[in-house]
Amino acid sequence: MRVFNFSAGPAVLPESVLQRAAAEMLDWHGSGMSVMEMSHRGKEFISIAAKAEADLRTLLNIPANYKVLFLQGGAIAENALIPMNLLGSKTSADYINTGEWSKKSIKEAKKYCTVNVAASAEDKGFTYVPPRESWKLNKDAAFVHVCTNETIGGVEYHWTPDTGDVPLVADVSSHILSRPIDVSKYGVIYGGAQKNIGPAGLTLVIVRDDLLDRALPITPSAFHWKEQAENDSMLNTPPTYGIYIAGLVFEWLLAEGGVAVVEQRNIAKAQLLYDYLDQSSFYSSPVNKQDRSRMNVPFKLKDEALDAAFLKGAEQNGMVQLKGHRSVGGMRASIYNAMPVEGVKTLVEYMKEFEKKNG
Amino acid sequence: MRVFNFSAGPAVLPESVLQRAAAEMLDWHGSGMSVMEMSHRGKEFISIAAKAEADLRTLLNIPANYKVLFLQGGAIAENALIPMNLLGSKTSADYINTGEWSKKSIKEAKKYCTVNVAASAEDKGFTYVPPRESWKLNKDAAFVHVCTNETIGGVEYHWTPDTGDVPLVADVSSHILSRPIDVSKYGVIYGGAQKNIGPAGLTLVIVRDDLLDRALPITPSAFHWKEQAENDSMLNTPPTYGIYIAGLVFEWLLAEGGVAVVEQRNIAKAQLLYDYLDQSSFYSSPVNKQDRSRMNVPFKLKDEALDAAFLKGAEQNGMVQLKGHRSVGGMRASIYNAMPVEGVKTLVEYMKEFEKKNG
Repeated sequence: MRVFNFSAGPAVLPESVLQRAAAEMLDWHGSGMSVMEMSHRGKEFISIAAKAEADLRTLLNIPANYKVLFLQGGAIAENALIPMNLLGSKTSADYINTGEWSKKSIKEAKKYCTVNVAASAEDKGFTYVPPRESWKLNKDAAFVHVCTNETIGGVEYHWTPDTGDVPLVADVSSHILSRPIDVSKYGVIYGGAQKNIGPAGLTLVIVRDDLLDRALPITPSAFHWKEQAENDSMLNTPPTYGIYIAGLVFEWLLAEGGVAVVEQRNIAKAQLLYDYLDQSSFYSSPVNKQDRSRMNVPFKLKDEALDAAFLKGAEQNGMVQLKGHRSVGGMRASIYNAMPVEGVKTLVEYMKEFEKKNG
Repeated sequence: MRVFNFSAGPAVLPESVLQRAAAEMLDWHGSGMSVMEMSHRGKEFISIAAKAEADLRTLLNIPANYKVLFLQGGAIAENALIPMNLLGSKTSADYINTGEWSKKSIKEAKKYCTVNVAASAEDKGFTYVPPRESWKLNKDAAFVHVCTNETIGGVEYHWTPDTGDVPLVADVSSHILSRPIDVSKYGVIYGGAQKNIGPAGLTLVIVRDDLLDRALPITPSAFHWKEQAENDSMLNTPPTYGIYIAGLVFEWLLAEGGVAVVEQRNIAKAQLLYDYLDQSSFYSSPVNKQDRSRMNVPFKLKDEALDAAFLKGAEQNGMVQLKGHRSVGGMRASIYNAMPVEGVKTLVEYMKEFEKKNG
């Protein structure tokens, strides 16, 4: 029996995607091979990768002057590779600090440049997004970096920052494809696949093509955006199976009606949970109302001595991975695209019952 | 129907591994989740990764003072990451140039240090391994780099170079696990998984622990061997599904009797093909007899005008990916561990028939 998996990532995938992957495992479309066994330069895999890119372009309405790269290493690798690829002759970059993931990005960037923390939500425990008017941006910055959804803290941008001529770079790992996005407002959008796209080990980078000339000479070829763009992400062997699964997820999203339709479902799912949290005095959400993530919902029990019993009961009821990140404690329900509304309803029902018994 | 897939990588996997992956796709061992959906910090995946490492240690008899890292980016990424991780206060490294993969390693290393090409087989078109006595090593080198099996040229080291106190670093991508190896003779062994280990997107690094203190400050955390070693390769989200498949391949190898047993099978498979090539005047092997790869067998038809017909006929007989690399032309049969002897027999039979018709 399948469980409801609230993991923050790697995370739940659509069941139909897994069924298709299982059915095609030994023989993809009569090729006599698993996708895992295919040469990345063979016609079969090239068609799989091209379709994945085309479907992603449709889903996010990606303008033609943006390159789509399928790379490796996840967001933590990109934390280093972004300054390497974008600094050019500049020596500093602006970062907005909204939580644990921003902090990781900042720490890594300091290896390559001066980091100006242009705004920070640390004063209130990373429970909000600092409003644009409070940002102290530097006109000479190579780029402005934001994490538009903090997976750990559960804080999400519900607006797009304007950074003028300085390119905006966004870590969208944990909410990409959960809602429409105006790609043209960004210089670079990047993220690990293991939340809303597919399996871990695949990294997506969407980059405006005029930014491809800024790489430092120390940039490794395998992670050099321009070289990868010129080689259709096949300068090295790409994570082929991850691209295949991502492609199946993109097909599923298109069949569901696209990102705008999925957004409505995500709003409804998140509202179910937040509405319940807000009327309860037993549970609470730490995050500022207008900055709450639709994907990652951290919450606390009034009495943390009950945490273990809550988690145990959840597991007995087929709900796993609800424990909050060790840095914030409490609970966290990650409710990505592939989490069915039934999963959230089951969780809320369980929370009600647990509150009744222990409240 | 499954084909015989002679791809150089990504490459054929054991059918039993694929069957198990398909059967476990929606629910791994009653967990209610696909391995792809598991948190890398959950008990299920931690057990999968730990077993994969333990089985690999058994297969290669890896000494306790070596760390096993499961990373990302493939050998082309490591070409940059090796100097980053190993240069320390040194400024140069020695490279042995035995073909296309050595050349890639050399080109990339030049971004970070002075490269001394201590020996090269370029004079004879990369058809041999320069004997140890011809190497002009530099005592101040940070390391000596070799590619012990050239996937494109089909040249393999059948001996282990002695480099004294200077650590020996080997790209073993395309012949790891095809035969026993004395790990203690190496400082670092590394390779992409997509030939003899598992799917593309997983990189294996085996490193002696006294070499972990030499990373340059520019080394990205995601690829910093020491930081990854301290975090059990989970400083960032690892390529979880690739590690799972690699683990299934390791289990399969153990069940087959281990690497020494598989080596005998590989010797027999390669001999079938080379013996036929050597007695034929229609086909030829360009590689020096004692340096021939057991894994990648390039060969030429006497008349290259027949190449297209040869490939077409092979495909009609269920054999794919026999075309040689564009840089050398001709044919190449990659016959990794997972290629059954029946595949090689079928190929030789087809070659005989083709020779009879066209010779």
